[in-house]
Amino acid sequence: MKENRLIKQLAFIQEVDKLKYIVRKTRLFDSARHENDAEHSWHLAMMALVLAEHSNGEIDMLRVLKMLLIHDIVEIDAGDTFLFDSVKDHENTDEELVAAERIFGLLPEEQRNEFISIWQEFEAGETADAKFAKSLDRFEPVLQNLSNGGGTWAEFKVSYEKVVHKISPIKAGSQVLWDYTEEAIEKALDCGTLLKKEDMFVETDRINGVNKD
Amino acid sequence: MKENRLIKQLAFIQEVDKLKYIVRKTRLFDSARHENDAEHSWHLAMMALVLAEHSNGEIDMLRVLKMLLIHDIVEIDAGDTFLFDSVKDHENTDEELVAAERIFGLLPEEQRNEFISIWQEFEAGETADAKFAKSLDRFEPVLQNLSNGGGTWAEFKVSYEKVVHKISPIKAGSQVLWDYTEEAIEKALDCGTLLKKEDMFVETDRINGVNKD
Repeated sequence: MKENRLIKQLAFIQEVDKLKYIVRKTRLFDSARHENDAEHSWHLAMMALVLAEHSNGEIDMLRVLKMLLIHDIVEIDAGDTFLFDSVKDHENTDEELVAAERIFGLLPEEQRNEFISIWQEFEAGETADAKFAKSLDRFEPVLQNLSNGGGTWAEFKVSYEKVVHKISPIKAGSQVLWDYTEEAIEKALDCGTLLKKEDMFVETDRINGVNKD
Repeated sequence: MKENRLIKQLAFIQEVDKLKYIVRKTRLFDSARHENDAEHSWHLAMMALVLAEHSNGEIDMLRVLKMLLIHDIVEIDAGDTFLFDSVKDHENTDEELVAAERIFGLLPEEQRNEFISIWQEFEAGETADAKFAKSLDRFEPVLQNLSNGGGTWAEFKVSYEKVVHKISPIKAGSQVLWDYTEEAIEKALDCGTLLKKEDMFVETDRINGVNKD
């Protein structure tokens, strides 16, 4: 029985190795290359440990870490959805649910159930733990893009308005991080690293298929 | 005051991005490329969540996760030490302590102190938490090498005897994982994926400078 559980657990551990191949649009802080989901998940977990005091609500750190460590595992099957994608919304999709069932389903049942429940709590973003976890998931690319001369904002011609809209979950998780972000974004606007919609070349955006709203 | 703390914390968060560039000798489960320390740390944290029930001693999961998430950060300055390296031992070195002081020293003081203390506890490997964390750090490359037709064992001509010696901390952390490992290693020996010292070409090993003991 114990051996059977271990075999299932090891199958899961081997399967999630694939998260290291899921490449995100964002680049590392020095912009040398794109980040993958495993690195991203590790970095968010580190951010949770270091920034916990800035959460708006009281959080259970172990639960937040679990959320952040597993939150992107579904992307092994469903692929990374770019935060600023204008067609596919960055939300819990049916495809992701199928992926969760398959991948977490490799585990013994009660572990499967726990992980699916934690993942769904993260996606719903309603509890204090999920709000804080989600705020970090939005905050990391802000830090990367600020460190990268605009990063994905510049590369995909994302307007100031769209950035502000998409990263607003930071505020729900942490007013302190949001205050920092707002100030940094305003500075990026002053420096031209970010552009308001009216200042962008609308035609180019249409052709690229991003930033349509 | 709060803002000053945040500035320090963000400097640390940016600095540890460099862990994504520290490349290990081990390769991913499908052997396509080498693993980096950030991916490795994430994977160990996942293993802790999934394999906790197999720990010999009672563990504090949050503390184990903290250990695993930060255990290699010193390698940003000190570099990765290959487990089977015959010259540089895979132990806490003065160089790593200087690195810990510099990198964790970017944080507000009580966070710096907590991280250094947790890292030292991991390195000492005496508490139940550290023993379990260390067992996972040894167990992951075993799984990778078994999945890779020998991985670093084959690439660096590491003998069966040396492998058994170097991965013995698995036993101190988890008898269940050790039983599994022993059986798998014996099977690797039967299949020729691993070789006993007497069956290896001693001269080649001498030239390569590995496996000297």
